[in-house]
Amino acid sequence: MSSMYDASFDGKVLTCKAAVLWGPGQPLIMQEVQVDPPQKMEVRVKILFTSICHSDLTAWKGEDESARAYPRILGHEAAGIIESVGEGVVDMKKGDHVIPIFTGECGDCVCCRSEKTNLCELFAVNPLKTTMVNDGKCRFSTKDGKPIFHFLNTSTFSEYTVLDYACAVKIDPEAPLEKMSLLSCGVSTGVGAAWNTANVQAGSTVAIFGLGAVGLAVAEGARARGASKIIGVDINPNKSIKGRAMGITDFVNPKDLEKPLHEKIREMAEGGVDYSFECSGNLDALREAFLSTHTGWGLTVLLGVHPSPRMLPLHPMELFAGRQIIGSVFGGFKGKTQLPSFAQECMRGVVSLDEFITHELPFEKINEAFQLLMDGKSLRCNLHL
Amino acid sequence: MSSMYDASFDGKVLTCKAAVLWGPGQPLIMQEVQVDPPQKMEVRVKILFTSICHSDLTAWKGEDESARAYPRILGHEAAGIIESVGEGVVDMKKGDHVIPIFTGECGDCVCCRSEKTNLCELFAVNPLKTTMVNDGKCRFSTKDGKPIFHFLNTSTFSEYTVLDYACAVKIDPEAPLEKMSLLSCGVSTGVGAAWNTANVQAGSTVAIFGLGAVGLAVAEGARARGASKIIGVDINPNKSIKGRAMGITDFVNPKDLEKPLHEKIREMAEGGVDYSFECSGNLDALREAFLSTHTGWGLTVLLGVHPSPRMLPLHPMELFAGRQIIGSVFGGFKGKTQLPSFAQECMRGVVSLDEFITHELPFEKINEAFQLLMDGKSLRCNLHL
Ligand SMILES: NC(=O)c1ccc[n+]([C@@H]2O[C@H](COP(=O)([O-])OP(=O)(O)OC[C@H]3O[C@@H](n4cnc5c(N)ncnc54)[C@H](O)[C@@H]3O)[C@@H](O)[C@H]2O)c1
Ligand SMILES: NC(=O)c1ccc[n+]([C@@H]2O[C@H](COP(=O)([O-])OP(=O)(O)OC[C@H]3O[C@@H](n4cnc5c(N)ncnc54)[C@H](O)[C@@H]3O)[C@@H](O)[C@H]2O)c1
Ligand SMILES: [Zn+2]
Ligand SMILES: [Zn+2]
Ligand SMILES: [Zn+2]
Ligand SMILES: [Zn+2]
Repeated sequence: MSSMYDASFDGKVLTCKAAVLWGPGQPLIMQEVQVDPPQKMEVRVKILFTSICHSDLTAWKGEDESARAYPRILGHEAAGIIESVGEGVVDMKKGDHVIPIFTGECGDCVCCRSEKTNLCELFAVNPLKTTMVNDGKCRFSTKDGKPIFHFLNTSTFSEYTVLDYACAVKIDPEAPLEKMSLLSCGVSTGVGAAWNTANVQAGSTVAIFGLGAVGLAVAEGARARGASKIIGVDINPNKSIKGRAMGITDFVNPKDLEKPLHEKIREMAEGGVDYSFECSGNLDALREAFLSTHTGWGLTVLLGVHPSPRMLPLHPMELFAGRQIIGSVFGGFKGKTQLPSFAQECMRGVVSLDEFITHELPFEKINEAFQLLMDGKSLRCNLHL
Repeated sequence: MSSMYDASFDGKVLTCKAAVLWGPGQPLIMQEVQVDPPQKMEVRVKILFTSICHSDLTAWKGEDESARAYPRILGHEAAGIIESVGEGVVDMKKGDHVIPIFTGECGDCVCCRSEKTNLCELFAVNPLKTTMVNDGKCRFSTKDGKPIFHFLNTSTFSEYTVLDYACAVKIDPEAPLEKMSLLSCGVSTGVGAAWNTANVQAGSTVAIFGLGAVGLAVAEGARARGASKIIGVDINPNKSIKGRAMGITDFVNPKDLEKPLHEKIREMAEGGVDYSFECSGNLDALREAFLSTHTGWGLTVLLGVHPSPRMLPLHPMELFAGRQIIGSVFGGFKGKTQLPSFAQECMRGVVSLDEFITHELPFEKINEAFQLLMDGKSLRCNLHL
């Protein structure tokens, strides 16, 4: 691992180490890969830290069969330094500290120009996308020239990666890079869901289903906004202690209940919570989250990824009780516009990042880090490259 | 029919004519019924006009089996005059002009006190409710004393009905009562969906699925707000002419298309409409309505009643495209608070009521009026009592 910037590769194909996935559920193979120089409006980034999000797990398992593509470099939560920039890139230069973002911001499309959405028409998250927008090609290849597919606009499980300008955000060089990878997905997603998507108000009540990094970041966002009750729900009893350290005021394990979960939560929150957040990726939990809110104004924010073909477990008439459901991608943050100031808010302590990194390992031990997340033992394991 | 107030029944059981439903899909029987005097916080209303909404059709057919109850008096769109008031009623008196509302407003519950919803905890619409809140009993009975069930807090297919104070709205006596029955459901529901639920903005684009009175009231509401494009969708080709007279700028009959409906609408509206409204009661139309909106901010408002057990035909991941769906009951209007001024807006011509009443018939011909709606020939047939 080195935090030093190395200029020697500028404009040329470089060779580095990456963790490559060759088939669903197979261990990642740490191997040498070739990384092309950035094309027009692209940047090449030296990744210094990367962590594993549940969305990497889902892709690794190949749960969504239509999204399978091998060989592929996964990873989308990271922080690094610009190694070189392609033609036309003016907002970033060599040596800048950047965070990759899986939901990019071109700044120019009808969605980027609207205040209502962060879903750029060109660079919004797309699990089926495997190549660069510019030319439909891969910037990664094996030593014998076989293309290696990209993942979520980012592919950060590599010492170097190539990003569209829209998918790299320059941040304050004073910000501690080793924590900034959290802003690349988990923490921004959770905090943003509370702030941007739900717009949680002081004194309101919140229930969070699934206390991984995303769910706990929702808790942190709700706490920062002054929510009066933050109920955490998880089937893993160990999440209780961690949760309480991070803003959760009440913990419920559905396995300990004798009544339906939503009934319990409605009792705890005078008829139902104002906001519920589904951060478990489980559809039954989604239904419970929906029913746990108050009639009339309850808002359920969907964050979990649901790769199964099962449809929404809601009846149309249930919408007539005034409960709403809304999806949130990357917490509704417009990455290039908003993350730099969000990073500064984190530095000022508005949101605390301290508890999210539970483990640190060298990049080579990435398969161990996957296992920690799968076993529910880690929130984020920060890998040092 | 008489618009004269008759005081002779005050405080006593009265006998009058009502159209009673004895079983699913059976012709309504015009028969004498007994109507109890209003109890505490109730009013007895002489109905002068009533019309038929598709929700009456749905109940008449017994499509939702769990909501069947016989004998029953249907009807929820009406206008009338207070005949007498029960103990404690202070905001209405004998002779006042009133509109029954199927979604009442007690004014006091946590929902009524919230600005976010019109779904009163006590008197929100409930198709399973068959009796009065006060004592769980019926105010209607046959001549030999058999109770007759209530419907949607209103039961307006009767010369006299008893309403909770929360379900009767006093309106300006100058307002033309024969048109005010439209405000009791169809027009308020449609206009309110555009104004309150969707908050349609000037210059925005709208698609409406199902051009009955509800759908056309959405069009009227969107037109009044300055929407630039209002696409009407109906499988009945006759709805085109009426629609164009009422603010629809473009008409699409899905049966004439060779491509999926949502693709056509996305082409017509530069990527998708800002708002779509499902007013047909058809779940496939609901899915098309959802997919017809623009990614990132498209909002689909659900108005149609869907009694089948089929769940929402949406996949959870589809919410990640930034399209939203929301249910609207009675157009989000808080009836007692907002309808009096809405009635005045209608009188001033902000919203035009002229085109909605397509037929007029004496009350006795109520079965004919049902048939007209079923055949797609009427918007509203106003029945004169
Ligand atoms: N929408 C977005 O932009 C976005 C971004 C990042 C992650 N995600 C998704 O958010 C979800 C959470 O991600 P994470 O990294 O925090 O995952 P994680 O694996 O760290 O946490 C998931 C938690 O959910 C709990 N859980 C599982 N089933 C449950 C159930 N039935 N009821 C209650 N709790 C249950 C687990 O015990 C675990 O603690 C994943 O589905 C991930 O793909 C979405
Ligand atoms: N949410 C509420 O508060 C509320 C209030 C009133 C009515 N409703 C419901 O709204 C709906 C409309 O009521 P209405 O009185 O205007 O009914 P209506 O019968 O007058 O109109 C329905 C229209 O939908 C059309 N239609 C049917 N199937 C269609 C399809 N697949 N695609 C396109 N168009 C189709 C019909 O041709 C008809 O013109 C009903 O389901 C009714 O129960 C809801
Ligand atoms: Zn992620
Ligand atoms: Zn864009
Ligand atoms: Zn109606
Ligand atoms: Zn109320």
